[in-house]
Amino acid sequence: MREVILTTMVMVTDPKTEKILIQNRTKDSWAGWVFPGGKVENSESFYDCAVREVNEETGLLIKDLTSCGIVHWINNKTDSRYLVFLYKTDSFSGELLKNPPEGELFWIDKHTLFETPKTNDLDKYFPMFFENKYSEAVGTSDESGYNGFIYK
Amino acid sequence: MREVILTTMVMVTDPKTEKILIQNRTKDSWAGWVFPGGKVENSESFYDCAVREVNEETGLLIKDLTSCGIVHWINNKTDSRYLVFLYKTDSFSGELLKNPPEGELFWIDKHTLFETPKTNDLDKYFPMFFENKYSEAVGTSDESGYNGFIYK
Repeated sequence: MREVILTTMVMVTDPKTEKILIQNRTKDSWAGWVFPGGKVENSESFYDCAVREVNEETGLLIKDLTSCGIVHWINNKTDSRYLVFLYKTDSFSGELLKNPPEGELFWIDKHTLFETPKTNDLDKYFPMFFENKYSEAVGTSDESGYNGFIYK
Repeated sequence: MREVILTTMVMVTDPKTEKILIQNRTKDSWAGWVFPGGKVENSESFYDCAVREVNEETGLLIKDLTSCGIVHWINNKTDSRYLVFLYKTDSFSGELLKNPPEGELFWIDKHTLFETPKTNDLDKYFPMFFENKYSEAVGTSDESGYNGFIYK
């Protein structure tokens, strides 16, 4: 039996300002600007995981999520997989946490999001969130590390 | 580490007749009318699995697949999961196999598909294929067997 890690990530947009919610993640893995999300818990659906993670990390209660497809990392040597189920929504209630657990939260416009250099691979996820034509971003790894993404 | 079984299923429609491709599956598990599909192989993307399985089971070469979301069976006792990545397309080339490996192939209209009693749960997948508003059909199981689906 091969390992399959199941996670979610959500792009939240404020419908009034059209700004996008960013978390400046402080944990070592994937530090820097990210969208909120995290690991699927026991007996949890992907949709419910996305709602829960955004609530825990930001304080917002989101609804009416739309799927943006999947990021699918495949380790070619072991056939282990890391899946990120992607969603977006512009429907939420509540206020941002004053002391968020995983890093500072702020809203930025799309232009700034695209133009600001990233310290992780978040840019590679943008075709999934912003172009409505892919169902899967496939990344593979081998001895030399991770290779680029193919969008399907 | 909990078991995660990864599979795909594809609804193929003939754009000229608007008829849908059915496989009358003869294997014991999930026998009866199904859409073609099967298990994801080592290092394979979900999209590529869907294309390969349809080709192996029907002879058709499909392209331009659109995601229809995921069927997500969760075993509450073990947290093992069975995922079916759903796709549809009306773009293909080739001819149907004369001796298909998993059961007779035929085209039927949507009305007949809906009205004909099934020997399996295929009906439960229809909201995913025919209504463009869900990303996940979640089914759970406990001691008494499988419970109904919730669409998210």
